[in-house]
Formats: sequence, C-alpha cells, structure tokens
Amino acid sequence: MELRNEELKENDLEPREDEKLTKNRLLQLMMKKQYREMREITTEMHPADVAQILEDLDENNRLVVFRLLRKDVAAEAFAYMSDESRNDLVEGFSDTEIVSTLEKMSLDDAADMLEDMPASVVKRILAKSSRQTRESLNRLLHYPDSSAGSIMTPEYLRLREDWTIQEAFDWIRQHGEEAETVYTGYVVEQNRLVGVISAKDLMLNSLDTQIKEVMDDNVISVQVTDDQENVARLMQHYAFNAMPVVDGEGMLVGIVTIDDAVDVLTEESTEDMQKMAAIIPEDSTATYFGTTVWQHAKQRIPWLLILMLSATFTGMITTHYETTFAALPLLVSFMPMLMDTPGNCGNQTCTLMVRGLALGEVTDKDFFKVVMKELRIAMIVGSILGAVNGLRIYLMYDVFAGGHYEHVMTYAMVVSISLFMAVILAKLVGGMLPLIAKKCGADPAIMATPFITTIVDAGSLVIYFRVAQILFGSTIGF
Amino acid sequence: MELRNEELKENDLEPREDEKLTKNRLLQLMMKKQYREMREITTEMHPADVAQILEDLDENNRLVVFRLLRKDVAAEAFAYMSDESRNDLVEGFSDTEIVSTLEKMSLDDAADMLEDMPASVVKRILAKSSRQTRESLNRLLHYPDSSAGSIMTPEYLRLREDWTIQEAFDWIRQHGEEAETVYTGYVVEQNRLVGVISAKDLMLNSLDTQIKEVMDDNVISVQVTDDQENVARLMQHYAFNAMPVVDGEGMLVGIVTIDDAVDVLTEESTEDMQKMAAIIPEDSTATYFGTTVWQHAKQRIPWLLILMLSATFTGMITTHYETTFAALPLLVSFMPMLMDTPGNCGNQTCTLMVRGLALGEVTDKDFFKVVMKELRIAMIVGSILGAVNGLRIYLMYDVFAGGHYEHVMTYAMVVSISLFMAVILAKLVGGMLPLIAKKCGADPAIMATPFITTIVDAGSLVIYFRVAQILFGSTIGF
Repeated sequence: MELRNEELKENDLEPREDEKLTKNRLLQLMMKKQYREMREITTEMHPADVAQILEDLDENNRLVVFRLLRKDVAAEAFAYMSDESRNDLVEGFSDTEIVSTLEKMSLDDAADMLEDMPASVVKRILAKSSRQTRESLNRLLHYPDSSAGSIMTPEYLRLREDWTIQEAFDWIRQHGEEAETVYTGYVVEQNRLVGVISAKDLMLNSLDTQIKEVMDDNVISVQVTDDQENVARLMQHYAFNAMPVVDGEGMLVGIVTIDDAVDVLTEESTEDMQKMAAIIPEDSTATYFGTTVWQHAKQRIPWLLILMLSATFTGMITTHYETTFAALPLLVSFMPMLMDTPGNCGNQTCTLMVRGLALGEVTDKDFFKVVMKELRIAMIVGSILGAVNGLRIYLMYDVFAGGHYEHVMTYAMVVSISLFMAVILAKLVGGMLPLIAKKCGADPAIMATPFITTIVDAGSLVIYFRVAQILFGSTIGF
Repeated sequence: MELRNEELKENDLEPREDEKLTKNRLLQLMMKKQYREMREITTEMHPADVAQILEDLDENNRLVVFRLLRKDVAAEAFAYMSDESRNDLVEGFSDTEIVSTLEKMSLDDAADMLEDMPASVVKRILAKSSRQTRESLNRLLHYPDSSAGSIMTPEYLRLREDWTIQEAFDWIRQHGEEAETVYTGYVVEQNRLVGVISAKDLMLNSLDTQIKEVMDDNVISVQVTDDQENVARLMQHYAFNAMPVVDGEGMLVGIVTIDDAVDVLTEESTEDMQKMAAIIPEDSTATYFGTTVWQHAKQRIPWLLILMLSATFTGMITTHYETTFAALPLLVSFMPMLMDTPGNCGNQTCTLMVRGLALGEVTDKDFFKVVMKELRIAMIVGSILGAVNGLRIYLMYDVFAGGHYEHVMTYAMVVSISLFMAVILAKLVGGMLPLIAKKCGADPAIMATPFITTIVDAGSLVIYFRVAQILFGSTIGF
C-alpha cells in the first residue's frame, strides 16, 4: 500500500490513483469475463475500498460487479456505501437479493439502510427475512431518529458472571462471529446488565478465573431514548469503544460501537456548521456532489428569504433617519463598516457558544457567567476597534484630505462611540441567544450567524444614527 | 449508575448531580482524614470521572486529593484532565512526583503533557525518567504538531508471523498490559509491518493456527508526517480502532488509537468553526471558560481589525456614489438588505466547501465542477430572492404607500436585478476562494464567512449603484 501513503501526503483522503488502477483492472477483468480473478481481488481488498470502487462505477456496471462479488464481501461493501448509491443499487435488485444482502449485514447497518427506503419496500423485504432478523429490525426501526436506539446494534457479546474465562473464550469462539464487537463482553443476569469485561481482561487473566471476579460492576450505560450526540460525546469522554444501551426498565437492549459514534459526531458537526450558515440540513450523510442543484436550492432558500425580509426592517430604520444622512452624507460611508464589524463580533461569540454547548463545556445554566465574561471581552475589543477606527477617520478625512471634509473630529467620535456600543450589544446578543435557544429546547445553531447579524445590524444602525444626532445636534441641529 | 441516565435525558454531558455527591463525599472524607475510604471510592470510579472531580476542586484541595489517590488511578485521571488543570497541578508537584506520574501514563499522553510545558522543566523531567521512557518521549516530542507522529503511541502489540495463536496469547498475557491496545496485533519482521491480526481473529481461530495463516497482509498504514486529521478521517473511513504508523523507510514506529483520533476530529471541527467565525484558534483543547478574558480578546481582535479596515474600502465605494443616493435617498434603505443577503449566500457556499474539503468529499481538483454547480444553484436562488424582493418593494412602496413614493417600479427593478447578480457573485466567490486557498496550501477555513462577506459587500454595492445609475439614467439622468 505504498501508493496510499504517497497520496495521503497530498492531503487527499481517498487513495485515488490506487483505486483508479484497481477500477480499470476490474473493468478489464469484467469485460474479459475473468470472474474468478475478479472475486479474488475484491476478496483481498478492504470492503471500504470495494465500496468506493462500486460508487465510482456507473449504475449498470455497479450492479454487474456487485452481483459477481462474494456474498459476504458484497454485504460488507454495501454497508460502507453512501445512501444514494445504495438506493440506486437496491432499485436493480430482486427481493431475494436484497434479503440475502440484508441478512449478511450487521443489524444496525441493515436498519440504517431500511430507514431510507419506501415503507412498502421495507414491508416486502421484512416479510421475506428470517424471523429473528425481522424481529430485531422491527425493534430497531421503532426508535426515534437521533436516539441511541437508532444507532445501536442488538448483536453484542453476552456473558454470564459464573462462567470462567475459559468458558467465555469457548463461547466467543462459537458465537463471536455474530457480535458487532467482541472487545467488550456484557455480563447479563435476567436481562439486566450487571457488569462489563474487556477482551483485554479476558486475555490478561488466567483461564480458570471466574468472570465475576474480574468484571467491572460499576457499569456506565445510556438509555435507548438518549440523544445520539450525547452518547457519542460520553463515549469520547470515557474513551469507550462501545457503550451499552438499556431500556426504561434497565434491560440491556444493545450497544453503540465507536465507529457509529464517530460518524454521529462528524454528522452533528456538519449539521451545526450548516445551520450556522443558514442552510437547512436535510441529510447530513449526503455529500456536496451527491445533492442535486434543486435540493441545494431548497436547503438554502428558506432562511435566505426570512433573513432578507427581516433586513427590510433594518432598511426601515435607515429610512427613518433619512434627514440625518441627507444632511450628513458622509455618514452613509461608514454604514457598511458599522454593520459588518459588530456582525462579525456577534458571530465570534455565537460560534463559541454553539460549539461549547455541543461539547458540553457550556450549559444553559452558565447564562450570567457568559454575559459577564462577554461584557468584559467586549469592553476590550470595542475600545481597541473604536480607537483604531477613530484614528483612521482622523487620518483619512483630516490629515490626508487637505481640509476637504468638515466636522471630521465629530465624525470620528460618532463612529468610535457607536462602534464601541455596537460591539458590546453584538457580543451580548451573540452570547445570550444560543443559550436562550438551548433553554427553550431549540437548537442553538439555528440562532447563529445570519440571525444574529440581522438583529445586530438593526441595533448598530439605531445606535449609530442616534449617536450622530446627539453629537452633531449642537453643530448642525436636528 | 441510574443518576447518570437521568442526567443524560436533560441533555447534559456530565453527570453533575452524581459528581457533586461524590465530590462532597470526598471532601468530607478528606476533612475527616478517612484516607483509606477515599482511595477505595476513587479506585472504583472511572478515571474520567475522577479527573472531572479533580478539575472542580480548588488548586490546594486538588493537590491534596491527587496525592492521596492510588498511583495508577492518579496517573490515569491525570491523562483525562484538561491542559490548564494539569499545568496547575504540575506546578505544585515535586520533580519525583512528576516523573512517577509520567512513567505510569501511556507514552502518547505523557508526550502530549510535556509538549505544553516549558523546555527547562521538560529537560529536568526527562533527565530523571527511565532511559526507555526518555528515549521514547524524545522521539515522540520530535514529530511536527498535527502530524500522525504527534498523536501516535509506540506501545503497540508486536507479534511474529511464525507464532501460533497460543504463543500470541501467552505473549499478550505477559506483555499486553503495556500495549495501548491489544485488539489489533501488528506482525513485524525486521521492523517492517508485514501483517495485522485482530484480537477477534485470535479468539475465533483454533490455538494451533499459525499467525501468518490468518493475518491480513494487505496492510493499510500511514506515514509519521501525515496530517493528523487525514489519519483520523481514514480511520473513520475504514472503521479502524487503531492505525499503524510507519516512517520514511517503511518501519513500523507506532499506532494511532481511535480515542485520540476522535479527539483530533473534534478539535479540527472546533478549529474550523472558530476560523470561519474570524477567531484565531490558539489551543483547541482549551474550553470557553478555561480561556481568560484577555486571551479571548487576543484571539478575536486581529481578524476584526483587518476586516474593519477592509470595510473602509466598501465605505469608499459608497462615497463614490454619493451623488446617486443624494438624488435617490430611498436607495440607502435597501443597502442593508443588499449587503446581508448576498453575504449570507456566500457564507452558505463557503461553509459547504470548507466542510466538504475537511471530509474529503470535495477536493481542489473539483474547481470547475463546483463553479458550474454553484452557478446553477445561484440562478435559482437569485431569481427567487430577486422576484420576492421586487414584489415586496412594489407592495410596500406602491400599493400600501398611497403614492407617497415615485419611481417605485424602477426601484423594484434595480433591487431585483442587482440582488440576482450579487447572489451569483456571492455563490461563485464563496465556492472559489476556499478551493483556491486549499490549492495554495492555505487553510480554506480562513477564507471563510467574514472575509467573503467583506468582498461580497463591496461587489454587491458596486453592482447596486451601477444598476441604479443605468436604470434611473433615463428617468433622472446622471
């Protein structure tokens, strides 16, 4: 795999050259009908790479190659594919093919796939699956979106406390293949989780030790209904490779494995970024190119429309002060700066809040702590920005303008003072809104940048024109 | 752990109630000098929870409690603590205490800690460490920041291909305690990585099988100098729990484990969000409250200053068109909307690019694909926004204004047309700049929101005033 390393240096995630070679090779073998060699190559490869190659093929070739893969390779590669390509593939499948792929997939991946398919198809598929698979899938499909239940798998390693480690190993050798992970064993008595034991403990202790002697009975678990992001963060916090999930009665119903938790964290970060940028996240697993132009437009237009219409309000404020800037047209020149800079300030604070809330570093109980902290930061930031801008105006419009402009010192004062006040407003709004949203059970990310910009814009302009009226009042008279 | 589950429902990451109880209990025990019971409680707890309690204590109590912990519990908890609290603690330590904690920590955690300490202290500590620890740490401390080398650990499970599984188990029982993970064994011959074997394969195959028969010789590895984010994304892609790291000569030098990869992904997302919000990320592991007011100000002021001064440029454009808005003061009312909306549009595209690049879904080679896609999206978005706004102006200033305003249709035309053009400009700039930054080896996130807003603002205003001059040219005459 030398090529892969070369590629990585260039900051590319996918080992493209390597794949292109393998892809061309596969296509050649397919055309020459050398199916046996094709199966051998793909069996050697990592299923994620097979999935990547399948994704790059066009629909017809994809179906042909997929059918030629060894059954288990096909099922594994299928689990690594994107939702879009999976759906394309499924459309070409016969029901028996879907069922056989499904039965070979791990249950959480299978449930994940079924979630995106039409209800009628799901019904048909489930009817043809084995009773055990059907029952497990039905249960998984029932958990609410974004809950621990929706990402867990019921295929965990179940041990008993009175077994010896030797007995545990024997059990694993017979049943381990079915478990999603064999690296944590769950000790269950009467469906209750009484302890966990890592494969490391099994391997490091002597074979005649009883499980209950070495298991950890201080079990950390989550509820099926817990939010998937919290579960993932908790796994990160404890550096867990798997987290047991219990139901309302404390019965162990499944586990969440680290690979799914990592995907959840990535998706949640993507969603937060999209929301902060006024995009409505539809499917956080969809890629940029995997989303059509119309879907992109649909995700972007609603917030833009709302924000555009609220900017009308800012426009009305401006109209209200028409006489002010008619008398002092230079005021208009500073409007862009007086809208952008406080906007950016609010943006900074809001981003820190949204991220802090997501990581659990900030909670909605910290409201006053945040307000006090941001107030102090805003005083420093506002003073410096105000001073620099005052100086800039003095230099540009007085020193280097050769007396072309009047009242330059007053303009400088107006801009500096209103900038200082607007920065404080922006930092407070940027800090408070996400926390209020969280408190109300709304998503703090929605409160973000564009929304805060609109509010801060309006506030900044009112401050600006009022300060101008007051300071110019004695000079010009309003 | 019933309390933990209760807490999670409330969307809190930390099991605060539970911790508060334990914390109070610990303090009571400490005051009563019941040290033995204290040690027992903390030994039962998860080290991440012990770390949390230590963090919540004030500096003096923290040092006292830390010294009373069992040595291995102390070292483990230490690894889970934040950089700030660790530094506080280290300041109270004697050199021997630091060395003894260090020797008990895993090497990657120890290196991570030393990286943040003054060079003189590091030298003193290393001098007192065992030769083996010193050599390993020295090597780890040499790798560049954000490289695979900087997050890897040299403590991996090393196996030989001619061993049987029984021999491997015997080796693990003797040496497994030192390895960072025993769940992937690395088969090394003459320092070269020739295969990997999972603990699952060890457990599922019969004991007399030779390792070379069951190991996977199609090894996926990364280079020490590879970027840590790419390594973490690759581990996510393959659903790996550990990734082997090789040096320039292909020698295996260490492994990156999934817990460190998860932390890297979280930190990189946080950094991207901060950069996009015009914040200079200093230490992505520092929390919001763990950063002082002055540090916050220092991280926020530089970009604000740069952006504020570039908004001067936008102001100059406005001044240039002074005669235009002096004749048509209503034009000023639409300025806020004509700056905000295209700014938001650029923001959306830019965010999708930065995230797409980070996830490897978009590469800098996709430049023209992105331009064409954004152009089509912008046409749809621009038409709809332009039309809605035209209608709004017609309704507000004509139908419901009772003939108070003149030339309303022309105003509506000017705003709609310039909005349409500005949206196209914004989406193209928002799509192109991050890709150009990436191509030039710069960080795409820096190009983000505030920077693009400033450019788009200037462009939008030029478009706006030019369109106004042209359309009003025949009516008013400029």
